Amino acid sequence: MFETEIEKLLEQLTLDEKISMIHGNGLFRTGAVERLGIPSLKLSDGPMGVRFEFEDDCWRVIGHSDDFVSYLPCNSALAATWNRDLAYKLGVVLGEEARGRGKDVILAPGINIMRSPACGRNFEYMSEDPYLTAKTAVPLIKGIQKSDVAACVKHFAVNNQETERLWVEVLVDDRTLNEIYFPAFKAAVCEADSYSLMGAYNLLRGEHCCQSKYLLNTILKEEWKYDGCVISDWGAVHNTKAAAESGLDIEMSVAYNFDEYYMAEPLKEAILKGEIEEKLIDEKVRRILRMMHKLKMFGTSRCKGAFNTPEHRRDILDVARESVVLLKNEDNRLPLQESKLKKLLVIGDNAERIHSNGGGSSEIKALYEISPLLGLKMKLGGNTEVIYARGYYVEPKKDENDINWQETSLEDVVQARRTETIDDQIKAKRRQHLEEAVALAKVTDEVIIVGGLNHDYDSEGLDRKDMKLPYEQDTLIKEVLKVNPNTVVVMMAGSPVEMGEWIQAAKAVVWCWYGGMEGGTALAEVLLGEVNPSGKLPMTFPKKLSDCSAYSLGEFPGGKTVSYSEGIYVGYRYYDTYKIEPEFCFGHGLSYTTFDYSNLCLEVEETEDVKISVNFEVTNNGSRGGQETAQLYVACTNSAINRPAQELKQYIKIALEPGQKEKVTLVLDKTAFGYYNTDKKQFQTEAGIYEIRVGSSSRDIRLKGEIELKQQYCY
Amino acid sequence: MFETEIEKLLEQLTLDEKISMIHGNGLFRTGAVERLGIPSLKLSDGPMGVRFEFEDDCWRVIGHSDDFVSYLPCNSALAATWNRDLAYKLGVVLGEEARGRGKDVILAPGINIMRSPACGRNFEYMSEDPYLTAKTAVPLIKGIQKSDVAACVKHFAVNNQETERLWVEVLVDDRTLNEIYFPAFKAAVCEADSYSLMGAYNLLRGEHCCQSKYLLNTILKEEWKYDGCVISDWGAVHNTKAAAESGLDIEMSVAYNFDEYYMAEPLKEAILKGEIEEKLIDEKVRRILRMMHKLKMFGTSRCKGAFNTPEHRRDILDVARESVVLLKNEDNRLPLQESKLKKLLVIGDNAERIHSNGGGSSEIKALYEISPLLGLKMKLGGNTEVIYARGYYVEPKKDENDINWQETSLEDVVQARRTETIDDQIKAKRRQHLEEAVALAKVTDEVIIVGGLNHDYDSEGLDRKDMKLPYEQDTLIKEVLKVNPNTVVVMMAGSPVEMGEWIQAAKAVVWCWYGGMEGGTALAEVLLGEVNPSGKLPMTFPKKLSDCSAYSLGEFPGGKTVSYSEGIYVGYRYYDTYKIEPEFCFGHGLSYTTFDYSNLCLEVEETEDVKISVNFEVTNNGSRGGQETAQLYVACTNSAINRPAQELKQYIKIALEPGQKEKVTLVLDKTAFGYYNTDKKQFQTEAGIYEIRVGSSSRDIRLKGEIELKQQYCY
Repeated sequence: MFETEIEKLLEQLTLDEKISMIHGNGLFRTGAVERLGIPSLKLSDGPMGVRFEFEDDCWRVIGHSDDFVSYLPCNSALAATWNRDLAYKLGVVLGEEARGRGKDVILAPGINIMRSPACGRNFEYMSEDPYLTAKTAVPLIKGIQKSDVAACVKHFAVNNQETERLWVEVLVDDRTLNEIYFPAFKAAVCEADSYSLMGAYNLLRGEHCCQSKYLLNTILKEEWKYDGCVISDWGAVHNTKAAAESGLDIEMSVAYNFDEYYMAEPLKEAILKGEIEEKLIDEKVRRILRMMHKLKMFGTSRCKGAFNTPEHRRDILDVARESVVLLKNEDNRLPLQESKLKKLLVIGDNAERIHSNGGGSSEIKALYEISPLLGLKMKLGGNTEVIYARGYYVEPKKDENDINWQETSLEDVVQARRTETIDDQIKAKRRQHLEEAVALAKVTDEVIIVGGLNHDYDSEGLDRKDMKLPYEQDTLIKEVLKVNPNTVVVMMAGSPVEMGEWIQAAKAVVWCWYGGMEGGTALAEVLLGEVNPSGKLPMTFPKKLSDCSAYSLGEFPGGKTVSYSEGIYVGYRYYDTYKIEPEFCFGHGLSYTTFDYSNLCLEVEETEDVKISVNFEVTNNGSRGGQETAQLYVACTNSAINRPAQELKQYIKIALEPGQKEKVTLVLDKTAFGYYNTDKKQFQTEAGIYEIRVGSSSRDIRLKGEIELKQQYCY
Repeated sequence: MFETEIEKLLEQLTLDEKISMIHGNGLFRTGAVERLGIPSLKLSDGPMGVRFEFEDDCWRVIGHSDDFVSYLPCNSALAATWNRDLAYKLGVVLGEEARGRGKDVILAPGINIMRSPACGRNFEYMSEDPYLTAKTAVPLIKGIQKSDVAACVKHFAVNNQETERLWVEVLVDDRTLNEIYFPAFKAAVCEADSYSLMGAYNLLRGEHCCQSKYLLNTILKEEWKYDGCVISDWGAVHNTKAAAESGLDIEMSVAYNFDEYYMAEPLKEAILKGEIEEKLIDEKVRRILRMMHKLKMFGTSRCKGAFNTPEHRRDILDVARESVVLLKNEDNRLPLQESKLKKLLVIGDNAERIHSNGGGSSEIKALYEISPLLGLKMKLGGNTEVIYARGYYVEPKKDENDINWQETSLEDVVQARRTETIDDQIKAKRRQHLEEAVALAKVTDEVIIVGGLNHDYDSEGLDRKDMKLPYEQDTLIKEVLKVNPNTVVVMMAGSPVEMGEWIQAAKAVVWCWYGGMEGGTALAEVLLGEVNPSGKLPMTFPKKLSDCSAYSLGEFPGGKTVSYSEGIYVGYRYYDTYKIEPEFCFGHGLSYTTFDYSNLCLEVEETEDVKISVNFEVTNNGSRGGQETAQLYVACTNSAINRPAQELKQYIKIALEPGQKEKVTLVLDKTAFGYYNTDKKQFQTEAGIYEIRVGSSSRDIRLKGEIELKQQYCY
């Protein structure tokens, strides 16, 4: 029906009008064709909330008070909840906020695989595991699109580092693409129907991803039958002809000369000269119009949005609560007992730092942001004396209002922030803060350190050089633990950090992410025992960066090219297969209660597909209510080819009161058993024995059983 | 019981320790006596939320992220709700937040009478009427103190101007003090049991109020039998002996040399020399210990507080909603019809300005503040195009971090902000903004101007020189109304402004105050008809400043002295008696529905007291639900002495669905009829005829009846 309308519109559109629709005519919008009632597409960053407004034609922040928004937990926090319902709810929040701000496309979520802990943008991504990423991304996207706003899943594909992201070519084999780097994108497209998708900056197989015939035409539009819009990353297009002939539909850029974009005047000239076929442009316009139709941009029945609502804050708080990961809790050090808490010393810059205003394109103007220190004070309500000591010194940022963004790259800015010119003054400040903190920790019973990274490190534009804590935090934590061994250590970051220098000495270690506007509330609730932690790591925390396969087998960050020679051995697939002991394994996360797993029972049905019912029971055998994520891993124990030691194929999060037992059934189909056969160009399973493992983490397997598949399946 | 404990403690306290308790030992705390388990009293500004933290010993803002708080509507907004339940709820919010922040005393509310529209601090006060002030202040104070936090009602007394506030002597007669300036303080003390009270800066009867034997000993402690603490305004004490001998209990100041305060070392020396009796100090300490006991500071059962809670935001929003006053609504211009609202032009600096960070000591760090522009966008949810034009240009403030507060007075800072050096650049900017706004208004169907004052004008430290709108707003509003006569005018301020230049041309005029963190939400809800406005003016809006009795009969702001020669004729008592036509009268406020008043029936019972039952019916005869505040005025029509034409003696706010009728009974006792007899030094009534008037405002009287009192009463 609407396809007919589209064709009618196409007939009426002039070449100029069509061209105006397929490239940026403002920094965050396409051209409109008012004559035919075709509006601009209004786009906005990003995953952690709807970004503030820029001038239409230059990178100047408008700075009015009308673009404060709800600040969402980062994607790695969301993934750490292992909760699909929450992912959907958070999607609804983001979609409603985007629509409320009058946007048509929200440039989220980021679903690239965390190949290395050092990638600056990991906090915007979800996991090292394609299955967990897909299962988190799909409901998130569906939630976003509920409000007649397009998700724009990004960055397709293999954009797993920031270093030289504009020019680096990724060398990676087909099996790895299909088993590791493609599945979440395929799910976003085929299961979630993400109305749009953003191409990556980097190159693959000799082509920039945003003008890649292989990625956009062959894989996305032909294989996956994608009918949505492909939008370039800002400035990721480099050639008119290549872009026009690829599956790219909209070119966006960081420059202000909109008519000079590759898919603007240069494209028009090439068409008029007969170098490029106009029907290629028609197809792009068709997809844009189709998306506009899906978004109800032509009618009067389009959803109304909402932003800054109490309901959004509630859902954001729920995600933050479930994202906190209890890494270690010797002697039941946590939760703190509020009734005995007369005085509390809180140490650390991250205890009181505001993070919403950083990170690159995911920066937003948060309506508010509860820091850990504020969260603790709010919860303690005046009856506990809370003392704060910064502990580690972070040099103030340069005033970025003075930066000329046309002449300065984001990379340079981020690099400048990280350059620690350790002059005497900084040394003195470091020492002073450290000494103050240690002296106070010596005389205070209850001490919490909140450290980790910040958006000078977890940032678009640049990767980290190592996994060490910046600002001499290791020394601080060691010194404080020395004078007060009861000190609770909280790490706030979007990517793993090295903890080896003090992890043995610390009794309690809590991991929180950039938890959004209510992050500090959630953390305080966990520390004080109002909320029982239930987050599980969505990535492995290696002991050191060199343990990671991107370094030991592959390259990171490479040079002009980067070789993914580790292949499918990414994350726990590597650590488990190659038997490398991590600091904390994939899926790890403790609770204030304990869970017992029992009575594994496996049922196999083989027909055209296979159906494996994995039945077991989980019991809360502790003294307080809590939630457990039971994880199901499949191990192909005697494969004819190289297979990872185990792979996550299902999971379920269940809430149990003390003493409560629940029967769980997880069902696997053939897709839980296959590998990508590069000759056949499809997934296939092998007949034989598979081990089914059920556990509380990838290395805390509680139940094991074997099944045998008699047939082979392809998909 | 505790009185015995107090005496025991007193016996153990050394002179040094007692002295340390009765003066500031930090900028916002008294000295502690740890030896005896006596803590510091921690005090904080102010009426609109709990102020951010300063260093203990200098005026440097600490600036951590742990002192963001809920931002409350200003007191004039609260008074405009005419809703005692909301006053109580807002008190609970403030008390919980103060307790949550670990405070013992919150320096609020301000209850001085609005003698002139020009007083810079009117926004912190409630009304020109002592009855409305008392009825708003009493539940507010009770609400605050529910959380084991002391209210500190201020500034006692006759602190009705900022000009020369430190040194001006107020000349005012006894009848006026007792009928106009004392009643709300008496109610705060006797009805609400405000645990503390702050003295004023100015002089009365030759004494600085904070060391006034007349005010603090005779009136407060002897006549009113006050058993609480009197705290000085910061720097309001000027003499050791006078302070010690007065009813002042705690001296606070702005200086850092705490030992040199008048009630510190100098007092100790005077006592040791025998110039001052130590028992005077004992009485102060006794009162401080008594307050600490009331606040449960010695036990373990003290209330826990809370700040930044969703419940606080809800109550704050409710106050903001009911505070908005619909001044004018010709042709039912309002509410706007959202379904027809495709495009909306919002004009005015106040549409997007943040106000929480200004105003003097009432400044706070708001967790967030919804501006009108943000509120409108949040409500419209992306389906209406909202365009913003600043319209009038406000010069940016100087960076106040550069101000040396020890050498610069608040007055100088405020004066500097207001000094409009109209150079060519500013002229050009004014013109440019005005022209842009007018041009847009010409081509946009729906236009809203949000203007008024800001905290460069509504500010502690300085009064306004006139009642005119600053920044050439009159020209802007006139020009916009000329090209778009449908334009809705919103005025945001804490004190009246002159509207004569354009009020006839404007169809719809809405008054909102500094409405707190949800002020913009509430305003948007009213403009869009989600909320039916129900606010009523708590002060008269005269046509021009010279119409006000402080100018026509009295002096404002005076010089070394200021004569209140207008006496009791303050506010509507003057305008009604002297038949001056105001722009909008006291108690005025329209609704989107209409209310009918009927069936007045008066019943009189005279015994030792008098009981007048005033019965009548109110009907919502419009088509939508709404709230009406029925106001009861008493007119002593043939008094032997000068009496105001009428005085507010009761009111009730009722919610009515369309067509709903409610029977109302308001009861008056003798206190509704008296005047202060200066010879007898008490209130007395006259026998004779009184007119009972019931109406929708002081000048929209719907029902009238007469009663006769046969006896005389004293009280």
